[in-house]
Amino acid sequence: MNDSAVRTIQSHHSDFLSQYQSFLSLNLSLDMTRGKPSAAQLDLSRRLMTLPGEDHLSPGGVDTRNYRVLDGLPELKSLFGELLGVDPGNVIVGGNSSLTMMYDTLQRACQFGVPGGNTPWNTEPQRKFICPTPGYDRHFLITHHLGFELISVDMTDTGPDMNQVEKLVQHDSGIKGIWCVPKYSNPTGCCYDEETVKRLASMSTAAPDFKIMWDNAYAEHHFSDDHPALANIASHSHQAGNANRIIQFASTSKMTLPGAGVAAMASSEENIADAKKHLNVQGIGPDKVNQLRHLQLFGDLIGLRAHMKEHGKLVKPKFDLVDEILQQELGQWNIASWTRPKGGYFISLDIAPGLAKKVIEMAKQAGVKLTGAGAPFPYGKDPMDRNIRIAPTFPTMEDIQQATRVLCTCIKLASSESPGE
Amino acid sequence: MNDSAVRTIQSHHSDFLSQYQSFLSLNLSLDMTRGKPSAAQLDLSRRLMTLPGEDHLSPGGVDTRNYRVLDGLPELKSLFGELLGVDPGNVIVGGNSSLTMMYDTLQRACQFGVPGGNTPWNTEPQRKFICPTPGYDRHFLITHHLGFELISVDMTDTGPDMNQVEKLVQHDSGIKGIWCVPKYSNPTGCCYDEETVKRLASMSTAAPDFKIMWDNAYAEHHFSDDHPALANIASHSHQAGNANRIIQFASTSKMTLPGAGVAAMASSEENIADAKKHLNVQGIGPDKVNQLRHLQLFGDLIGLRAHMKEHGKLVKPKFDLVDEILQQELGQWNIASWTRPKGGYFISLDIAPGLAKKVIEMAKQAGVKLTGAGAPFPYGKDPMDRNIRIAPTFPTMEDIQQATRVLCTCIKLASSESPGE
Repeated sequence: MNDSAVRTIQSHHSDFLSQYQSFLSLNLSLDMTRGKPSAAQLDLSRRLMTLPGEDHLSPGGVDTRNYRVLDGLPELKSLFGELLGVDPGNVIVGGNSSLTMMYDTLQRACQFGVPGGNTPWNTEPQRKFICPTPGYDRHFLITHHLGFELISVDMTDTGPDMNQVEKLVQHDSGIKGIWCVPKYSNPTGCCYDEETVKRLASMSTAAPDFKIMWDNAYAEHHFSDDHPALANIASHSHQAGNANRIIQFASTSKMTLPGAGVAAMASSEENIADAKKHLNVQGIGPDKVNQLRHLQLFGDLIGLRAHMKEHGKLVKPKFDLVDEILQQELGQWNIASWTRPKGGYFISLDIAPGLAKKVIEMAKQAGVKLTGAGAPFPYGKDPMDRNIRIAPTFPTMEDIQQATRVLCTCIKLASSESPGE
Repeated sequence: MNDSAVRTIQSHHSDFLSQYQSFLSLNLSLDMTRGKPSAAQLDLSRRLMTLPGEDHLSPGGVDTRNYRVLDGLPELKSLFGELLGVDPGNVIVGGNSSLTMMYDTLQRACQFGVPGGNTPWNTEPQRKFICPTPGYDRHFLITHHLGFELISVDMTDTGPDMNQVEKLVQHDSGIKGIWCVPKYSNPTGCCYDEETVKRLASMSTAAPDFKIMWDNAYAEHHFSDDHPALANIASHSHQAGNANRIIQFASTSKMTLPGAGVAAMASSEENIADAKKHLNVQGIGPDKVNQLRHLQLFGDLIGLRAHMKEHGKLVKPKFDLVDEILQQELGQWNIASWTRPKGGYFISLDIAPGLAKKVIEMAKQAGVKLTGAGAPFPYGKDPMDRNIRIAPTFPTMEDIQQATRVLCTCIKLASSESPGE
């Protein structure tokens, strides 16, 4: 915010204040906090609610109702393999949560160690994990909970700042990995470009057992046909001799039903064999009936992509609406910048440093709930206190319009009060 | 086996040999290894395959399709609470596997410690776990995998030998817990009597954070109305001031679908709050749609029990048949003893020491697969090499008849060869 912008906006302070006060009187109750699908999106998967019907055999003849098949139905392994660019043999299809697969993967590394590593990570008292920020709070929480120190690096428009990443991992063997959401990253919506993918796959790391937690949660979650391709990190890391470095994750949580979807992980043969060794003790196998339901719903990757197109049609107008209002209300003032993703679930909004917490509290007073300030940062602390995450998928168009206008008024009011400290 | 029995049976050696050889020529392929429901049992839950239909709201109004509700649908918490004799607030309803809940519970204890304990169990290098034997191989495997030394105690007709248990736990603070299947124990089918339950609940333990892993897998799996009651270990431990000692588990794996059921755990408020704190990092919540399906199928505990009666009708004739053939073929020889459970999934058969491995191998040669010798013992080693686990639920009556006759012939042949060393 430059000085002239401050002067201009300060002269409108009383307008913004009366606008804000009129919102206060409306007793609104709007929620923009959660990255979750709307009811209309869930209805796209309505068929799941009566599947699999009489047909409990998988195409390969497995009675999905009974025990066994530790790594999931072969047909779903193929589907996720195609989605993630790996062979079906490199895939494990699990339960309803990829987040649980990530937690369990890291918990196993802590307890038992990983192929290519020297000791269980628990024996590394100074273990650390890189968190590109802003990022996904639940990722950061997992590594914090498991005793890692969280190291921030900046997120750019093309992925994490690779100069920072390379410098960190090169000398510190306590740094055991990095969190990545390579496509439509939560919350900025950026997509990793090919150079970033290549550098991640090939960089030299002091830890021999460094891991990239590649959470491709939004692989197919485009708003339209206009979307960037993501380079295949499995091939790049294989070529660089670092096949064990990459562990990919995906799920249908935001394709079908968030509570009742199917999750998968993919990695090198060695990592998959190691994971199965432990999974064989942790349980008897995933819910294969639910896997069959999903197979019947999608058929194949073409079917899955057709399904995701319908999601895009429902979601795009909501993102367009937020962008339009932000532009209308804030564009002229030069007090905020925000992302315009081509897919995913979030818009990341930066305002003047020091104002995010205040604005989010003001919005709350006016009945608009936003994700807590700092959530997308390690330890829940935004060092600049300027980032606001907007999640437009769940509310109706009307609610989005209202909530975004309230938010904009709060930003303008706070900016007009503050001399930009 | 006494000397006169040996002399008598030895004189029939050639009969048994020719019987065995005639079985060999039949090229049988029969499987008595797995404690899994038959197709007819699975068909009892056919309705699950088209539920929940259009109705995705829980009775309490939760949209089961979306995120949240970490500890499961309240209505299912009530159902499992009633089943396990605790308040709904002391229950967590999870995914499709109680075994996974057990593994995760112990993994959390290793990584983080438990309420009332001093340190994470990982920091106890000499950690140990009591395994009543014969018992459930997958229980023992979990604790072995997590680095516990496995301590055998004898299983009696009324539960683990409590004199042995009390003596062990009294002085050794490295002993962190005991595995229990209190009703129709795997594989003997015994039920813990009230005295055993009370002693487990109230015994003094050197470890302040001693845990009873109370896997009530077969709580409702009676063959008929004639079945013993199980004392409420939650109340007894509460009365004894040891509420944190007990962690109960149950699942519908052998009520509905083994691969696609619903599992639950129950414990003290403190333990449940502690588990939720970690579960909140490990994931976003269980598959609530599948929980709703089960609620719709059962309705309540009365409905669940009516459902289990149908299972009993299908399973009882199979157990009766095995018992009848064992009696016919072995009764006169005094070379074996076996259990006659009133519910559950297994019959435990003891033959002369040193013969189990040999008999199981002979049966395999004749095309009859049995659970591997030693499986129900810590480290897979039966110190007496005499126990054979029989799992009669899955095969057809015809197959059971054939397989049990083969088994009996192998036992007689081996016993007639061996001087009972």
